[in-house]
Amino acid sequence: MTEHTVRAFTEELEALGADLNRMGGYSEQALSDAITAMARRDAGLARTVIDGDKKIDELQREIERKIMRLLALRQPLGRDLRQTVAALKLAGDLERIGDLAKNIAKRALTIQEFDPIALTRSVERMGKIAVTQLKQILDTFASHEVAGAVSVWMQDEELDEHYNSLFRELLTYMMEDPRMIGPGAHLLFVAKNLERIGDHCTNMAEVIYYLETGEDIGTDRPKAVDPAMPPLPPPNSESSK
Amino acid sequence: MTEHTVRAFTEELEALGADLNRMGGYSEQALSDAITAMARRDAGLARTVIDGDKKIDELQREIERKIMRLLALRQPLGRDLRQTVAALKLAGDLERIGDLAKNIAKRALTIQEFDPIALTRSVERMGKIAVTQLKQILDTFASHEVAGAVSVWMQDEELDEHYNSLFRELLTYMMEDPRMIGPGAHLLFVAKNLERIGDHCTNMAEVIYYLETGEDIGTDRPKAVDPAMPPLPPPNSESSK
Repeated sequence: MTEHTVRAFTEELEALGADLNRMGGYSEQALSDAITAMARRDAGLARTVIDGDKKIDELQREIERKIMRLLALRQPLGRDLRQTVAALKLAGDLERIGDLAKNIAKRALTIQEFDPIALTRSVERMGKIAVTQLKQILDTFASHEVAGAVSVWMQDEELDEHYNSLFRELLTYMMEDPRMIGPGAHLLFVAKNLERIGDHCTNMAEVIYYLETGEDIGTDRPKAVDPAMPPLPPPNSESSK
Repeated sequence: MTEHTVRAFTEELEALGADLNRMGGYSEQALSDAITAMARRDAGLARTVIDGDKKIDELQREIERKIMRLLALRQPLGRDLRQTVAALKLAGDLERIGDLAKNIAKRALTIQEFDPIALTRSVERMGKIAVTQLKQILDTFASHEVAGAVSVWMQDEELDEHYNSLFRELLTYMMEDPRMIGPGAHLLFVAKNLERIGDHCTNMAEVIYYLETGEDIGTDRPKAVDPAMPPLPPPNSESSK
């Protein structure tokens, strides 16, 4: 390889990293705005999130085109190869996070005329934790500090526990007042979306750890609770009469 | 490249394809069994699906290791490169389908003592459509017949429509009888999982189309309904008294 080729290659890898940082910024903004839109019944902001998802999808397609070109023309090895394949995976996670944020924004529009705000408060709290985790893993990617990846990887349980307690809380409200069933169902899905965003942050932590170290971060984390299966609250016998 | 190298390379690509076919077979079986477990209240079968997911995850890791090795040692180009990157993506989709099937099996266990079977009937019908789509896209991958990819890609709407009508149906039951709220919520998530499996089949169709033709299948399909946002049924005023 000539010096010129090496420099061009380094520049291409850096451009790829910059695209991913940009995509991460968009996804984080979308998530944060979707949660605000839901909490404040802000239909305009919800529509901004929904329309903005196209930009995230387009950026993913552009990143993938660059990756295919890099693999074909530069035939990277070692850390460069790990970085190229990591970019493909990270772009996939960020695209899904954008989709999930868009879905939250759509549900914010659907439930906007729904009065009791107490229910969305708990969902908003969970949303803020998800934003923090996403921000943390994006910072880790930008700074190459692998400790951040381990930290995010270990934190996933926090969102799982929130999800379980929200599941029970929302079901209890739905049992007490059948008018809550429609909006409650949408909020169950919002909570599930936030839990999934936590999973994507965990995936990204695994990818970044492997990129930086060449090793797997581990296999099974200890899980206190199964996020898929929170126990059902007892049926409320009063309201079932 | 010597003839020996070319032959070894072709064999590695074929082995990768065989691994993917095996992974596809496991995922299809898991999905089909999860739906049967739910429909027949078969706890043993549900547990088989839950335990079997490890096998799918392990196969994904093995496929990824092979892909990294192929990229590093063989530096594939053209169709070979597309095939290698496609394998990475397809393994990702199949792993998620396995997860979603496992989640359905867990929910089958949670709702197994729940009497009215009418609700699960509709979910079972939707499940069978999802199995058919998955089978079709796996056949397309194995046969390289790109028409199958286009067909699956165009069919996604069918599952979206099922999901919307199931969403309304389940919410109506939940409003009529609050004892249905707990199991109904789990069935809402089962329906959502099946809709997501449809999305993964669509993704796979896009990947296979690109692999076989080097072109994008297209961008936006016309969508009759928004799967994220089925309209809420009117609150049942009788049961809310």
